[in-house]
Amino acid sequence: MPAPTAHDIAKAAKNAFQDAQLIPASERAKALHEIQLSLQASKVEILQANQEDIKAAEAEVKAGNMSETLLKRLDLNKGDKWDSMLQGILDVASLPDPTGTVSYASELDDGLELYRVACPIGVLLVIFEARPEVVVNIASLAIKSGNAAILKGGKESNRTTTLLAKSISAGLAKTAIPELYVQSIQTRAEVSSLLELDEYIDLVIPRGSNSLVKSIQNNTRIPVMGHADGLCSIFIDQEADVTKAIDYPAACNSVENLILHDSIVNTVWPSVAKALLEANVKLLCDPTSLNALKTCFSALPNMETLVTPSELSSYDVEHLNLTLSVIVLPSLRSAIQFINAHSSHHTDSIVTESDEAASIFCRGVDSAGTYVNASTRFADGFRYGFGTEVGISTGRIHARGPVGLDGLVTYKYMMKSQAPSGHIAAEFGTGKKQYKHNKLHTTTVPFLI
Amino acid sequence: MPAPTAHDIAKAAKNAFQDAQLIPASERAKALHEIQLSLQASKVEILQANQEDIKAAEAEVKAGNMSETLLKRLDLNKGDKWDSMLQGILDVASLPDPTGTVSYASELDDGLELYRVACPIGVLLVIFEARPEVVVNIASLAIKSGNAAILKGGKESNRTTTLLAKSISAGLAKTAIPELYVQSIQTRAEVSSLLELDEYIDLVIPRGSNSLVKSIQNNTRIPVMGHADGLCSIFIDQEADVTKAIDYPAACNSVENLILHDSIVNTVWPSVAKALLEANVKLLCDPTSLNALKTCFSALPNMETLVTPSELSSYDVEHLNLTLSVIVLPSLRSAIQFINAHSSHHTDSIVTESDEAASIFCRGVDSAGTYVNASTRFADGFRYGFGTEVGISTGRIHARGPVGLDGLVTYKYMMKSQAPSGHIAAEFGTGKKQYKHNKLHTTTVPFLI
Repeated sequence: MPAPTAHDIAKAAKNAFQDAQLIPASERAKALHEIQLSLQASKVEILQANQEDIKAAEAEVKAGNMSETLLKRLDLNKGDKWDSMLQGILDVASLPDPTGTVSYASELDDGLELYRVACPIGVLLVIFEARPEVVVNIASLAIKSGNAAILKGGKESNRTTTLLAKSISAGLAKTAIPELYVQSIQTRAEVSSLLELDEYIDLVIPRGSNSLVKSIQNNTRIPVMGHADGLCSIFIDQEADVTKAIDYPAACNSVENLILHDSIVNTVWPSVAKALLEANVKLLCDPTSLNALKTCFSALPNMETLVTPSELSSYDVEHLNLTLSVIVLPSLRSAIQFINAHSSHHTDSIVTESDEAASIFCRGVDSAGTYVNASTRFADGFRYGFGTEVGISTGRIHARGPVGLDGLVTYKYMMKSQAPSGHIAAEFGTGKKQYKHNKLHTTTVPFLI
Repeated sequence: MPAPTAHDIAKAAKNAFQDAQLIPASERAKALHEIQLSLQASKVEILQANQEDIKAAEAEVKAGNMSETLLKRLDLNKGDKWDSMLQGILDVASLPDPTGTVSYASELDDGLELYRVACPIGVLLVIFEARPEVVVNIASLAIKSGNAAILKGGKESNRTTTLLAKSISAGLAKTAIPELYVQSIQTRAEVSSLLELDEYIDLVIPRGSNSLVKSIQNNTRIPVMGHADGLCSIFIDQEADVTKAIDYPAACNSVENLILHDSIVNTVWPSVAKALLEANVKLLCDPTSLNALKTCFSALPNMETLVTPSELSSYDVEHLNLTLSVIVLPSLRSAIQFINAHSSHHTDSIVTESDEAASIFCRGVDSAGTYVNASTRFADGFRYGFGTEVGISTGRIHARGPVGLDGLVTYKYMMKSQAPSGHIAAEFGTGKKQYKHNKLHTTTVPFLI
């Protein structure tokens, strides 16, 4: 049998999706349990393949072609990663069904009822980095929410992900859900071909760099839910608590920009800087914050090596290491404007004891997450209570921030006439019947069997 | 002053959006009242410009360059169009504020609360046909939902839409909302330039043909909420009520495909066909439905002129006139498969007295609207109870079907620590604090002032 083409794969996914529409949600939960068993049964084989991926990666690291970070992410047997991956499947299985719930219901006329009902989106094409456990996380969320999925992991994890996908299909085969409900692909060429097939694929979910997300957006008509990197900020307000101001930047290895209200430059800032330098954080400082440090700590040991003047471009860079770009601004309003201009609209936090400043910050900052006295690292599907996550959406359409099951459903409208003669629209209008639009209080569609 | 470039327009829109984030929702309702007054005050001037648009269009119709339908849509003074346009503004003003409502709230830890809050999307670029009242409908919905908007109507209505936009700005000028919150543009070149500016524009909403929507999707990274034409179907089930079966197809000038269960070809279908032919509906019939008619009505007057054999492509065409493509299929399942393969996923209806068939149809048909014994013409924002509509989305991401205020909002997450020492993520994990994830029952964010 020749290998399936991208077109075959996409068409099979759409067929699997449509065929599964009448399968009850309980079968989807059952499928997750079967998949967990199937993975457990293939553990030795999968970890062996994972070892091969790791060996190949180690050679690449030695040759200087791959980072240590990437290598570490490959290992499926590190710590409790395997067990928590399997537990995650059961956790997702036990979450409430995200489909079938009614978000709007209205009686348009006697016996004519309208319902807006959550339903799956369709076929998802998910592209992600070389982290094999993501195959299982995303397959679990897709199945639970009733979506078919085509998965493409980073090529460095191909051996592992192929076997994971095989186990997932084997689990599905024990249920009424079609085996091709979840498929995996290995090559970029397949991705390119799939991006053309908007008749079969309903949503592309790329996880990775801004450039990956942009390149996919540039090459498809299919809607894209991008999960790009975050450029996050912390603003230390004039009414900040000094202890919290010290804690947050140090704890937030995911923060890029530290913004200081100018009234605290000579009071709170030196203590914050001291803590950061002790934690070996590199500081790129604007002239005001730099001068304040020079005045206070001419003799601090790490100053010379860790503190350097910032450039204009310093505030648009995702450092991805222990570096903070620091800027002093004259007001909360100017801090909000600065964040809206420089952040990636991911997650930003204010340190303040003022309720008014907190409220203005949360309204004014145009990001998926706006926090008060809390670290930006809380932006995570598990921490938010979603069990696991597809990723953190940096778009603002459909789903924003950490995406769980809710982000993988859309809705459809169902309408039923119970009137003896049915309903036609021509009966309504000026001088004819008027719409009632009586709100109905229900969470399910009463006529669905 | 030189005319603003597309970049100026987009940047001004984003600034207007961000500046308006702290303005209370009551000011947005006030703005709608001011706009209504401003339009009323400029009525003579606007209708004069509208007359000029109509005169130019009449010349085009005479020259054979424009359809009568397009000409008719231009007239802002026809019937009660002007008054109902103005009443529509007040109706939208009185709808509940779609922003600020909480759809998910969770206590992650003592004193650490997370809220998912509805908020505006940002800057909308809306492209629509030459129907001047749409400027006012969409501006009303955008303002009420807190979005800035750039509007481009069909060029045939340019004189009218320019003055409508001027009145809208004059109304906004009497409020705290920036005047450039709603801007209008006139040329396709401006649209092309704006489609590049994903840093300023958050959502493109094109209304029009499938080819317009596809062309925009092909030329932008910005998310697109397409409002293309609908290709709708009615399925007459084996358990259809004959009267309803006769009523619906005749009443649905928006239906393209009529699907018949084969068990009713010689019973219900002849009566349906008779009613359709009496209503001058052209029928493109597959062999089975055609033979049934020939057997029953060899002598029916309209048969010769109105009934012709269908082709394979007949079921993928939007007729946009009194034409129906007819096909006979052996089962409900095959009808669902046929609809999913041929419909534009807009609105489809079943005529049946069977609760089971109704339920299977509504689950199985993958369209924005699935109806039982009701005409597909009910798919409309006003009829659904949304006041008015942006259009009927034929995409399935973010908003589907008729789009009202709910379709123009997204959400953000707000988190606040009330704990004396604030919250950092490093406090949680194995052997440390565990997340509580206690559901909070609230519809608003308590700490927003």
